[in-house]
Amino acid sequence: MTVQTAPVAITMGDPGGIGAEITLKSWRDHRANLAPFYVIDDPIRLERINRQLNLNCAVAPATALDQVNDLFKEALPVYDLGGRVISLPGEVNAQDAPLVLKSIKIAVEHVCKGQASALVTNPVHKASLYESGFSYPGHTEFLADLASVETEPVMMLASDRLRVVPVTRHLALGTAISTLSEALIVETAEITTRALQRDFGITAPRISIAGLNPHAGEGGAMGREDIDIINPAINKLIEQGVAVSGPLSADTLFHDSARETYDAALCMYHDQALIPIKTLDFYTAVNVTLGLPFIRTSPDHGTAFDIAGTDVATEISLVAAIKMASEIARMRAQNDIRT
Amino acid sequence: MTVQTAPVAITMGDPGGIGAEITLKSWRDHRANLAPFYVIDDPIRLERINRQLNLNCAVAPATALDQVNDLFKEALPVYDLGGRVISLPGEVNAQDAPLVLKSIKIAVEHVCKGQASALVTNPVHKASLYESGFSYPGHTEFLADLASVETEPVMMLASDRLRVVPVTRHLALGTAISTLSEALIVETAEITTRALQRDFGITAPRISIAGLNPHAGEGGAMGREDIDIINPAINKLIEQGVAVSGPLSADTLFHDSARETYDAALCMYHDQALIPIKTLDFYTAVNVTLGLPFIRTSPDHGTAFDIAGTDVATEISLVAAIKMASEIARMRAQNDIRT
Repeated sequence: MTVQTAPVAITMGDPGGIGAEITLKSWRDHRANLAPFYVIDDPIRLERINRQLNLNCAVAPATALDQVNDLFKEALPVYDLGGRVISLPGEVNAQDAPLVLKSIKIAVEHVCKGQASALVTNPVHKASLYESGFSYPGHTEFLADLASVETEPVMMLASDRLRVVPVTRHLALGTAISTLSEALIVETAEITTRALQRDFGITAPRISIAGLNPHAGEGGAMGREDIDIINPAINKLIEQGVAVSGPLSADTLFHDSARETYDAALCMYHDQALIPIKTLDFYTAVNVTLGLPFIRTSPDHGTAFDIAGTDVATEISLVAAIKMASEIARMRAQNDIRT
Repeated sequence: MTVQTAPVAITMGDPGGIGAEITLKSWRDHRANLAPFYVIDDPIRLERINRQLNLNCAVAPATALDQVNDLFKEALPVYDLGGRVISLPGEVNAQDAPLVLKSIKIAVEHVCKGQASALVTNPVHKASLYESGFSYPGHTEFLADLASVETEPVMMLASDRLRVVPVTRHLALGTAISTLSEALIVETAEITTRALQRDFGITAPRISIAGLNPHAGEGGAMGREDIDIINPAINKLIEQGVAVSGPLSADTLFHDSARETYDAALCMYHDQALIPIKTLDFYTAVNVTLGLPFIRTSPDHGTAFDIAGTDVATEISLVAAIKMASEIARMRAQNDIRT
């Protein structure tokens, strides 16, 4: 059963980055295989980039969002964010930061009202946002605040072959170790389990939990965290009926046959999660934010200022993000009808 | 030019493990594609396992090591380690620990005298060795002591697609962080460079050095070690003419096109090095010990007591280890003739 859903909203991202060209190319080369989407951007600058790079896209204003699904067949629908962007691709410029944030705010509004089914964010440049007074650690925390979410969202990286969830994220490795706690692991595993059920349609999700230390500490011979922090978290999760196993030696957790034994791997720190998925699926890994009241994915790359405006950037990761966002939207719609 | 070299010596490993059966299978199924090798074992127990598992191998005593190369075509040459093994496959038993160590000592003797060209070690069980009074942290440190090497050997994991060298190895992650030093990184990179030249025949080796923290610390925003420890090490190495680059974000260091930019990746801790190579090449990654006066490789797996004696164990990793050992031996022989 396929449920018709509202279109996917894509944010502008930093206008100095590759957001515009990869969004245009996603529509041009992949629209037949993607659910309808629209971008919240400055239509004038988008048309200019389209022309300058000879991308030959049809671009049309998305004035009424309920017409985007039809409009999408003929042109890339652009919802005017109501402001003129100054920076050109390749420029690192804080001047447009208010419009970068506005595009995100509008997208959240649309998705909260049900006018969009999911949100895909193009990459932003944190330094430029900070310069203009932005005070959130990153994109995700800003979204959580816009959505009035109290618990910290969870980051999942997902590709066709692997799903990983880092329990700690953008922290110095030493700080990540001292931040680990039983409660944090339990909470992250719970959010991950619910997402695997609701968003990925896995009725009885299996989660593998990586150890922190080499060989998961080898019985305490190489570090105590696996015994003192991760083990109690696993016991608690098992008591709650969550199907977890671990702590498992992280180096043997990601090869072909190991990956068949779980639906997501919970990792203790950034690189433990991101090394395996980016080694396997560098261009197609998608960032999915779990624990928000709406669906949000993003391509797993940055603004790429160095190649912006040169038509070199590949849209593969954005296409994967759009695809995953719409698949999750359909899955949720089906699940919500059933329940 | 192919240089004729002495045969490769293989140690028994823990007799409760899979060493015997994978050695027999390596000879039976791969001898046509491998340089001659012999195993230092108890011939009686080897013949028993051969018979019990119906492996149908021809096994013959290697009394004169200079005849091993010829003997190898007809049978697996076994050098009698001079003692009867008690444990059966699948048994965890410290009784045979003296024979396990003796097999290693004999192999080192052979390789130091030039009777063997390289050493391949089957997996040992550290707990059993400790029980019988063994006091080295592991296999490698024991070999270093037998070879009277003062600087700590360096571990490289190598497959056809990737070579990684962890600067710190079997330490709790927190301890690994505090153990990192400029001197350790410089020394490890120097040993790695020399090995890439002498053992792998790479005239001008390129080494990529991973950062410790996420995104290599992002300019100090996520940890100082990349700036305070790794950067000075890199500068020193560059001054010495070693072709290193970094510190690089570890999560983007191991995908297909990234791997083309270097000959070895220097990693800061165990899992940073082992996750990518075991994700990519779980069965064919070989452990190469650098910085010993002789060549030593080992399969990248343990004793596998749980499947020992059941004919389930795969010999793929041991075959890869034998192959790499003999390739390095030939490369060294060629290089040593040239210089």
